[in-house]
Amino acid sequence: MRRRNRVFEHAYAVILAGGSGTRFWPLSRRKQPKQLLRLFGEKTLLAQTLERIERLIPPERTYIFTNQAIQNIVRREVPRVPRQQIVAEPASRNTAPALGLAAFEILSRDPEGLMVALPSDHLISKPAQFRRVLLAGCRAAFQEGHSVVIGLKPTRPETGYGYIHRGELIGCEDGLEIFAVRQFTEKPPLAKAKRYVRSGNYFWNGGMFIWKAATLVKNLQRYQPEMARGLGRLAEAGGARSEKALKRLYPQLENISIDYALMEKIPEVYAVAADIGWSDVGSWATAYELSPKDRDENVAPPAGFLFGSRRNMIVSPKRFIAAVGVEDLVIVDTENALLVCSRHHAQDVGKVVQELERRNLKSLL
Amino acid sequence: MRRRNRVFEHAYAVILAGGSGTRFWPLSRRKQPKQLLRLFGEKTLLAQTLERIERLIPPERTYIFTNQAIQNIVRREVPRVPRQQIVAEPASRNTAPALGLAAFEILSRDPEGLMVALPSDHLISKPAQFRRVLLAGCRAAFQEGHSVVIGLKPTRPETGYGYIHRGELIGCEDGLEIFAVRQFTEKPPLAKAKRYVRSGNYFWNGGMFIWKAATLVKNLQRYQPEMARGLGRLAEAGGARSEKALKRLYPQLENISIDYALMEKIPEVYAVAADIGWSDVGSWATAYELSPKDRDENVAPPAGFLFGSRRNMIVSPKRFIAAVGVEDLVIVDTENALLVCSRHHAQDVGKVVQELERRNLKSLL
Repeated sequence: MRRRNRVFEHAYAVILAGGSGTRFWPLSRRKQPKQLLRLFGEKTLLAQTLERIERLIPPERTYIFTNQAIQNIVRREVPRVPRQQIVAEPASRNTAPALGLAAFEILSRDPEGLMVALPSDHLISKPAQFRRVLLAGCRAAFQEGHSVVIGLKPTRPETGYGYIHRGELIGCEDGLEIFAVRQFTEKPPLAKAKRYVRSGNYFWNGGMFIWKAATLVKNLQRYQPEMARGLGRLAEAGGARSEKALKRLYPQLENISIDYALMEKIPEVYAVAADIGWSDVGSWATAYELSPKDRDENVAPPAGFLFGSRRNMIVSPKRFIAAVGVEDLVIVDTENALLVCSRHHAQDVGKVVQELERRNLKSLL
Repeated sequence: MRRRNRVFEHAYAVILAGGSGTRFWPLSRRKQPKQLLRLFGEKTLLAQTLERIERLIPPERTYIFTNQAIQNIVRREVPRVPRQQIVAEPASRNTAPALGLAAFEILSRDPEGLMVALPSDHLISKPAQFRRVLLAGCRAAFQEGHSVVIGLKPTRPETGYGYIHRGELIGCEDGLEIFAVRQFTEKPPLAKAKRYVRSGNYFWNGGMFIWKAATLVKNLQRYQPEMARGLGRLAEAGGARSEKALKRLYPQLENISIDYALMEKIPEVYAVAADIGWSDVGSWATAYELSPKDRDENVAPPAGFLFGSRRNMIVSPKRFIAAVGVEDLVIVDTENALLVCSRHHAQDVGKVVQELERRNLKSLL
């Protein structure tokens, strides 16, 4: 327990909550992206993310990076996180600048600071196991100064994710295997994804990383020197706490993900093998799969009425919905927009959002 | 023209608008039954019914039988029909009592009066041809004192309709064949319906009849003497114009259709063969078939967005609807209820209404 405590005294959570995904339209909107939806349970995915790590990392050592459109909603959602640690990016610049800025902030508080970078819109059904993984990852990152990625056991040949090719087994920590990473690979075509999964030598990359803040800054200086300089200037001008500096300097940073910017380039990365019941809840189809179903395999509010209907997902907080003789549909009803979608075409929901943007129908976005 | 004028001087329309069908839920409600829907064109089916016959029978010789729930809406819908000729049945008693009462009313105005009894919730796509049929029917009924039914050419082995077995050809009037009726038959099973249609000797019974009022009263006296007596008492007490008499005596009349009560019993019935583009628009599936479609065979409001979707019918006067990858659906969106139904199960929409009645959800009925 001593080691554990020592590590976590230095641990800071950096939660990325700036996403504005379109795949849960019409429930998700610009002002209500996926991380702010109550799709599973009574709490938003963002609140669940915080709750999951709170026992290890308290709110006063938690940073949330979000965007200006939802900043106030995020603040209300996580009231225990200090206001100045909820950073609204003045422009969307992907994950590398946000994590780089977080590293500078944390360094200024604790030169030994350890960053746990987490997305805010994923589900993890085994939170205790997840915390064990974080602990193992933190130890590795803290003691050896390595970069650590959480390696998710793949369960299907998903083509929408990045994969991690694992190398030799470095060690075992609390029963969890830690591997050297041979390579990060981009979203593969299906045949390749199938080979990856079959081989047993690949993980999914869920975007969960652990580094010392100093390690991240050092790596940025080496592999993204321009960004490192930009972040340095921003830090000198007041960093994330200065709205003015943020507004002026943040948009100048390169728009690039941490995977492209660093993870694919740096040599020493460890992966902790994690079996934590992870899902990125990437579409209504996934939401259906993760939801409890009735005997006709429907996910539906009790107030509605289904007749001769199977395997549908119905979301209707207010209106009465009757479904008659329909199968494999996603029906989502909101105040001003309705989606009726084949469960097998849930990935095309983004097309609706594109069309709404084309028509400039802001009230529906 | 002289004969025509002479006949139509005595013609009275009796339009039955008391129905409260459930098959167009959620658009149709207790206070907005099918005859009051604007499903085809800008006018309600009731208004279209009146418009169709107005050139032959003016509003001052038109009676409308409806129910108390929609009486005021009906009045607004057909303002040119005199108020006292819009009769609200105090209880639903099917068609025989309403038509019998109409006969007494008309007789009191014109002993030679001719009744043209018409439903108010059907579509007729060839109105000029329909008027020719009415003219031929009126002549036959007027000159020979016969009962006349409009015999609709069947286009499919429909099991939901009554059929008319035709007998010998009586004559030809304005190019229209008039047959003796051998028998009225009830809704047949499919095999029988197929034989009927194949034989060429059957018509559909669309509930459109023509008689002299005196003929109808005489037939009622013979075949439904109790009802005739009841109607006589009601007529003496003030008839349809006395709300009090109506309330007291109308509910005592037998609840029976004119087909059962008379048409199947009286010997001398003629049928005018009619090819008038008739449809009773019996379900959302029929409504889809009758509506103009886009190139993907969808019937949809232009404000919505369909992607990879075919052969759907979407009714949404207000809300934005996006359909993605769906086929053969009926989607009907109203203020407080939404229906998503397979086009091939449109006949089950009544099940929803039954369920709403069971749950006593009056705001949805």
